[in-house]
Amino acid sequence: MDQQSTLPTAAIIVIGNEILSGLPDQNVSYIAKGLNKLGIHLQHVHIIGDVLETIVETVRHCHAKYTYVFTTGGIGPTHDDITAEAVATAFNASLELNKEAEKIMLDHYGNSDIQHWNDARLRMALIPKGATLINNPSSAAPGFRLENVFVLAGVPDIARAMFDEIASLLKPGPKLYAEMVHCMLAESLLAEELRNLQARFHEVDIGSYPYFKNRTYGLSLVLRGINQDLVSEATKAVMLLITQNGGIPERKNLA
Amino acid sequence: MDQQSTLPTAAIIVIGNEILSGLPDQNVSYIAKGLNKLGIHLQHVHIIGDVLETIVETVRHCHAKYTYVFTTGGIGPTHDDITAEAVATAFNASLELNKEAEKIMLDHYGNSDIQHWNDARLRMALIPKGATLINNPSSAAPGFRLENVFVLAGVPDIARAMFDEIASLLKPGPKLYAEMVHCMLAESLLAEELRNLQARFHEVDIGSYPYFKNRTYGLSLVLRGINQDLVSEATKAVMLLITQNGGIPERKNLA
Repeated sequence: MDQQSTLPTAAIIVIGNEILSGLPDQNVSYIAKGLNKLGIHLQHVHIIGDVLETIVETVRHCHAKYTYVFTTGGIGPTHDDITAEAVATAFNASLELNKEAEKIMLDHYGNSDIQHWNDARLRMALIPKGATLINNPSSAAPGFRLENVFVLAGVPDIARAMFDEIASLLKPGPKLYAEMVHCMLAESLLAEELRNLQARFHEVDIGSYPYFKNRTYGLSLVLRGINQDLVSEATKAVMLLITQNGGIPERKNLA
Repeated sequence: MDQQSTLPTAAIIVIGNEILSGLPDQNVSYIAKGLNKLGIHLQHVHIIGDVLETIVETVRHCHAKYTYVFTTGGIGPTHDDITAEAVATAFNASLELNKEAEKIMLDHYGNSDIQHWNDARLRMALIPKGATLINNPSSAAPGFRLENVFVLAGVPDIARAMFDEIASLLKPGPKLYAEMVHCMLAESLLAEELRNLQARFHEVDIGSYPYFKNRTYGLSLVLRGINQDLVSEATKAVMLLITQNGGIPERKNLA
């Protein structure tokens, strides 16, 4: 839609074999809603495995293409946690022991004589040169930011807390207004007239989301735009259209 | 991991502004589990908006790179349903009225004199030339297959039914065996020894998934591979490691 070219953009890179094996992701929806509230336009989500070259390639691609990039997953202490190394490679930066991160680890885990414990702790303090840390309020391993790339944990509670932590650093876009109208009509019945409405209100993004549950059809229409008056006018036009086609429109403000 | 180079691969392309706005996707996990059971290695999931050039570019990229590609969303009758057009463009194929699809629509909706009803019905029967239809057991609009690209509905119940419908057409890879071992130890404590185990069992993919819920840490270790004996041996080694570090391993067969 027209207004989107002026919006700051974002991509999310979900890193983890477990998601590709069928474990449902729990972070995308949370980050997407947060970006939406900030008027930042999420354009692409990549879900990829714990494969170094794939992470490097995807980070490079998104870094160049979007205003902001968020990665989740792969910052723990085990062999499959390779996000820091991959981001360093993507930026041609060295991976080095971050003194601030080391101190966080030390404070959290305490000093220990057990070698493998120390190794794991130090591994989580290896951060690309030039990055600033993102506080991990739930456990020790910090995330980090390098230019427009924000590296967050994969564990859902921690990823969400980290996103909340950095949300204030993001430059918001123009506020997006959104309204939802629901009805029980078949989508086909409204399709052509919705197309005409979309052409008339070209600054409003009209999305049509049918569903089918317990053998019943329903339809949600979502209207979004940065001009509140136009969103409101288009919403009224959609409600009239539903009424004219024998449906009962239910309006719901999403903003 | 070593065995993966011999496996058939797949990508999923989730198409829909609503997912980028924060509505949780409900199809990826289902398709991922289905592919996993078939020994088909899901390598990349793209979530993108209803933007023609993005869909065309992503379909072309995935078509060339993976054994199978599955798209969900955008095959309904409204203006934001542009998947068929995008897939046709990606393959340089024309979009034409598919007689079989038209008949399905006619049988479902009945013949009607209402023009917009006919237009919407015909729109859902526009299928790229050369494609074969995928039956939609819940509503009318069929999906389709063009070469290695399977175009499925976005509505979760329908997407799942369509995937089940086409699963038998996919050539399975070697069966993947998977085991899960759970414990309440901190991931850091096992990290170095897990790294050694991964090096020893290089044909088994050992994933480490910590979680943090209700202020409690836990760790799930998932072991996968096509050699059942090696997976079993590696699982026993992981359990021993947990016991040696003061934890109580709980084994769970995922296969």
